[in-house]
This record gives sequence, structure tokens and C-alpha cells, in this order.
Amino acid sequence: MSAKFVENVCVLGAGSTKYGKLDDSISDITVQASAAAIENAGIEPKEIKAGYISNVFGVADKQVHLGPVVMSNLGISERPSLSIESACGSGSVSFREAYANVAAGFYDAVLVTGVEKVTHTGTEWTTTYFSYCSDFFYEGQAGASFPGLFASMARAYLNEFDATEEDLASVAVKNHDNGLSNPKAHLRKKITIDDVMNSAVVASPLKLFDCCPFSDGASSVVICNEQFAKDHSKDYVKVIGSGRGGSPAALQGRDHLTTIPSTKLAAADAYKMAGITAKDVDFAEVHDCFTVAEVVDTEDLGFFEKGKGAKAARNGETRLNGSISINPSGGLKSKGHPIGATGVGQVVEVFEQLTGQSGQRTVNDAKIGLTQNFGATGASCAVHIFQSV
Amino acid sequence: MSAKFVENVCVLGAGSTKYGKLDDSISDITVQASAAAIENAGIEPKEIKAGYISNVFGVADKQVHLGPVVMSNLGISERPSLSIESACGSGSVSFREAYANVAAGFYDAVLVTGVEKVTHTGTEWTTTYFSYCSDFFYEGQAGASFPGLFASMARAYLNEFDATEEDLASVAVKNHDNGLSNPKAHLRKKITIDDVMNSAVVASPLKLFDCCPFSDGASSVVICNEQFAKDHSKDYVKVIGSGRGGSPAALQGRDHLTTIPSTKLAAADAYKMAGITAKDVDFAEVHDCFTVAEVVDTEDLGFFEKGKGAKAARNGETRLNGSISINPSGGLKSKGHPIGATGVGQVVEVFEQLTGQSGQRTVNDAKIGLTQNFGATGASCAVHIFQSV
Repeated sequence: MSAKFVENVCVLGAGSTKYGKLDDSISDITVQASAAAIENAGIEPKEIKAGYISNVFGVADKQVHLGPVVMSNLGISERPSLSIESACGSGSVSFREAYANVAAGFYDAVLVTGVEKVTHTGTEWTTTYFSYCSDFFYEGQAGASFPGLFASMARAYLNEFDATEEDLASVAVKNHDNGLSNPKAHLRKKITIDDVMNSAVVASPLKLFDCCPFSDGASSVVICNEQFAKDHSKDYVKVIGSGRGGSPAALQGRDHLTTIPSTKLAAADAYKMAGITAKDVDFAEVHDCFTVAEVVDTEDLGFFEKGKGAKAARNGETRLNGSISINPSGGLKSKGHPIGATGVGQVVEVFEQLTGQSGQRTVNDAKIGLTQNFGATGASCAVHIFQSV
Repeated sequence: MSAKFVENVCVLGAGSTKYGKLDDSISDITVQASAAAIENAGIEPKEIKAGYISNVFGVADKQVHLGPVVMSNLGISERPSLSIESACGSGSVSFREAYANVAAGFYDAVLVTGVEKVTHTGTEWTTTYFSYCSDFFYEGQAGASFPGLFASMARAYLNEFDATEEDLASVAVKNHDNGLSNPKAHLRKKITIDDVMNSAVVASPLKLFDCCPFSDGASSVVICNEQFAKDHSKDYVKVIGSGRGGSPAALQGRDHLTTIPSTKLAAADAYKMAGITAKDVDFAEVHDCFTVAEVVDTEDLGFFEKGKGAKAARNGETRLNGSISINPSGGLKSKGHPIGATGVGQVVEVFEQLTGQSGQRTVNDAKIGLTQNFGATGASCAVHIFQSV
């Protein structure tokens, strides 16, 4: 990627619905989060020049082509909009596209809103449709749904490195601890290692409490160029790094099951652009769809050496205000995982952390936050790095 | 939109599957079109730095998250990709995002591929799912499917202006004439005004032959910066204008039924960027999902005064090598309408026209071509302008 862009990009405001089982329609929750972000940014809707919506299964609530519906409900129907899908990584990819357009000078301020509304359709429908995000020819139609695919990664990790099922469980326990302080979180419930170990086996070695929930929810941020941010006299956060990468779509096409190539590519790009290394990051929101994923993520992002992530989780290094705070929001595991919203929700958390809006779950003295959000088993990934001003 | 972008953008190659009822999977046809475009561009897959896929109903063939599957099948799994949806305007919006990224210098060459695979699901499923592209709260759930909504526009047009049902029929007849010379077209069949007038009423005043078909198909282009184009010594085409706009999502929110606000906004932006007016355009691929749409499009794009489009069609002005050739490819009506592919397919036609690859349907001495592609009843629209070198 070139570095010829003409504008610095900032996050000016953020908003989110609660994550969980929501009664309102997909359109309504998308508008609710968007309006909250615009209000938080301290601007009027008409100052928004384009809308980037991320969503995967609009069909579940009978509304695709969400962009114009949202823009019309915000009173700015004349503004262009679009929907972006990259499975569970949709939100971060949409953020990246919006970032690129602002960086290039195409728009001075845009709305980035992610949404998913699926819980009303039931577990069978949701599991089936989510499997369409895998490489369906090789995986989904062979019966390999995501718990099974991540179980393969977990089994390989446990076999290869110094790690136990209890270590994986400690990731869930930590994220539930963090989520207790997040009023928007789906599962606000303290759990223990024993709770995880005694929960029903979903796909061995992963048990129910190793898995994030299906959630509804919408998250939104307003991003803009730096002059626009300064003109609106608000606390804002700078985007200092953006990277993307890909992996073989099917797990069977990869050389190793204990690393995600797209994360490493995206992180390398983002660190290079930001001019920092993993050591400079104060906290990160990472993609913990299953406990093993968070462990792998923390290694692929360079926070720990390969094979040392499970031990770091066991020793509490990733707890709030540990050596590096991972998922202070509660992560996908506790905050929830409305798949089209998740990547935007991570940015909401970073914005709130770096502007003093995160209450009891605040990472002390944080200056630099990172988001990592992938699709499927990491077939696609985006990493972004943010700095307080 | 600012004009601070750093690179001129060119179309270097194009490819397409046949449009119609296809047997291969959505993944396979996407890869087929992509590989054809890359071969036509005279480059290797590894020279592609990112993949922009447009698709609406991946669920119909059990594959969303198409990007990584396509990139993996092309042997470039490490490259980032994404899917873009903007209803029937998905292809042009994806092209626009890819354009913006190349213009900004983020990538030197990218793949833009659109696809849809729905015919195997049957008319009832397809009609139902397509209705989710409307403002479903106000339209779809009230029983207003797209034929009904465009029939409202047609009735208003016939009531307000010098126009007859036969004039609308003449659009279908002309597009079928053009499609006869397009080997990729779905409906290659000469028809007469009487054929249209005697076909079954779908939603009065629109009859079956006023409506485009449901199609499967994939179309792809390679776009790049000008230096990359020159380095590869190929015929290429410059993108000289790009514009987008929005309209109230539901038809009931508009002031008039006989114009599409998003088209006018997108065209104004694109003409301004290109530094030309409608008079300078030699031919256009426009969004003729229903015959009345083409008439309205040709007015909103400035080719004819408001209310004069039907008469122009009646008089043959829009025929191949008429005063302005409209839809030399056969348009959505004859070439077909695989909704995620259509906007990219329009660019394929413009590229083939401006590089001498369009055979019997060639627009003589054409230098400037325009594409206009919208979603739903025009809730979203993108216009692009291209010039031969």
C-alpha cells in the first residue's frame, strides 16, 4: 500500500445499541446506533457525506440495501451509501473503506455503521447461514461449521504448545470479568474456570463457554479528516495505521492451523504505517469468536511469541491493566458478536477508552489502541491502530 | 467530492460469463469471469493487489464471504478482498470503491468482479428476496414488489408526458435488436412492438416484455493506475468521471415519480469531474430494469429534456448509431440482469466498445462512454464516464 494519501483520519464520535437479543428491526437498530454516533460527534446529520454500512445477513430481517434506508431515516437521503460484507470481519473492512475514502480526500466526514439482526431466526437457521461464510464447497457442505473448524485449531494448538484447556478457559473468564463493566455487553455474568470446563462440549476441545454468542446489535462511528475534527472542537482519536490481509479461504489450504496468515499481513501493514511495534500498543480489541482465537490473535499480532499466548492468558498478562489489556470491552465472548457490527464495535471501544468514556473498564494511561477483526477462520482480516491526541 | 486524488485510473482488461441460466456455482462463475479479465488484461494474478466483489444474494448459492474464495482460487489468497452490496447497483458501487482506492494510491491494480446466481431457486424465491432491496417497511411488506413500483413510475410518466405504451415497448425492441449481436446476452431474440404489447400484463402498464429477466452471471474488470497500464502495453480506457448519489429509499418519499434524484446527483458529479456535458457522450449503458427506467434515465442523464425521452425512443434516436446509442450491449432487458454483476458488466461493454472488441454492435467512432447503474427504484446510483486513449 502506498502512503500517498492526503488527509489524516480521525474518529470523532461513537455510538452503539446494546448487544444481545433485540426486538427492534434491523433498520431501526442501525439508525439508533448511527444517530447516537452523530450526536456523540457533536455534528448534524447533514455534515455526513456518505454512509458505510456493514452487514452480512440482511435477509434474516428482510432488509438488504440498508444504506439508503438508514440515510433516509437520518434525513440525508441524497447522500451515497453502500453495504460491505466480509463475514465476521465486515465491520473492520467497512471501516477500512471509509478510512481510505477520507484519507484520499473524497469525503470530509462519513458514517460507518455495522449491524446484525439474527437471533429471532433461531440457532439452526443462524448456524446454517453462518456456515455460508466458510469456503462452503470444502467446509460448510462437508458439515464443518465454525465451532468445528476452530476446534481443529484448538486441538492443534493444545498438541503443539504449552497449553491446557484450562488456559483457553481463562480467556473466557477474563473477558466475562471485563464485560461486567460494559453496559452494552450481551453476557454480563461472572464465570469461573470450572464453569467453562463443566459446560457442554460443543466441538471438543471447545465447550459452550469457549464460544461467543449469536448476538443482535449495531455500532457506529463518525470518521473525518483532522481539520474537520479540529473545527468541531471535540475530543477525537487519530487513525495512525490500517492494514488488511487474506488467507486461504478453507482451513485445509493453510500450512499451519495455529496461526492466521491474514492477521500477520494486516498487522505488518498497520504497524509499518503507524511507525510502531507491538510493544507500543497499550490495549487491543481482538477477534475472540472462540477462546483459542484470542490466544492465536495475541501471538499473530506480536504481543507474545508463537506458542506463548496460552501461558500469558493463564498468568493474567492479558487482564485489564495487565502487561497488555486484551478485550477490555469484554470481547466477542462477553460483549457479544453481532457479526456485521463487531468490527465497528471494536472501534467504538477504542474511541471510548482513548477519550475517557469507558468507566470502570478503563485501561490506565492508554495512548495507543489496536483493533483486529477477521472473517470466517481468518480468511480475511483488518487491523487498525489508533492514538489519542 | 474533492479532486485531490493522486492517480489517474484506467480499465486494463475485461471478462464476463454468459448471462442467463447457468449451471456452475456462484464461486465458479465468479472465478471464471475474474480469470478472463486478468487474461484479457495481459497480467498475472499476482499483480492484482485487492479484490472487490459485488453480490447481493450469496445465500442463494450458499456462499457469502466470496472474496477469499475467489482470491484463493486465483492463487492469490494473501490479497485482501471484500463484498459490496447496493442492491441492483452493487456492481457500479463496487467499481467506484475500487476506483477510489486506486485513485488514492492505495493499490496499483485491483480486480472488480460482480456476480449473481439465483435462477436455480425459482421465481417465487427470487421475487421475494429481491423485494428485500426495497424499503421493506414501507414497500416490500405492503406487497409492492419492483414490477409494481416501476409500474407506478410508468403510469405517472404516461400520464404526465407525450408518451404511449408503444413508446415504452420500443425500448425493449431496440435493446433486443442490440442484444442479438452480443454473444453473452441472456435473451438473444428479435421482438416486435406487437410482441411486447401482446405479452402478459405483469403490473399495468408494464407487460412481460417491458421487464428484464432474472439472470445468473458474472462480469469482471481489472483497473489500475495509468503508469501500470502503460507498463503493460495494452489497450486501455481512462476513467474520467465518477459520481454517486442517493434518493429517498421508498418511492413514496419522493417529490416526483418521473425522475430519479440519485441519477441526477451522480451524473452531475461525474460530468463535473470529467469536465464534459451530456452532449459529449457517444454512448451509454443505462439501467433499464424496466423499459420506463431507460426512458427516465436518458432524461436524468441529460441526453433528452424531461418528458422527451419516450419520443426520442419512438423516433429511434437511442438505437445503435442513432443520435446517442443507449445500451448497445442489449442492456438489462436483453443482455440480462444478474443483479450483483450488472454494474460491472456495463463497464465490460464500455471497455470492449472503446478498445475495438465489440463486433457487430460497435458504436462508430466512439470516444466517450458512460455507465449508469442504480439500486432498487434508484435509492442509490453511480455514474462513471470513460474515454478511449
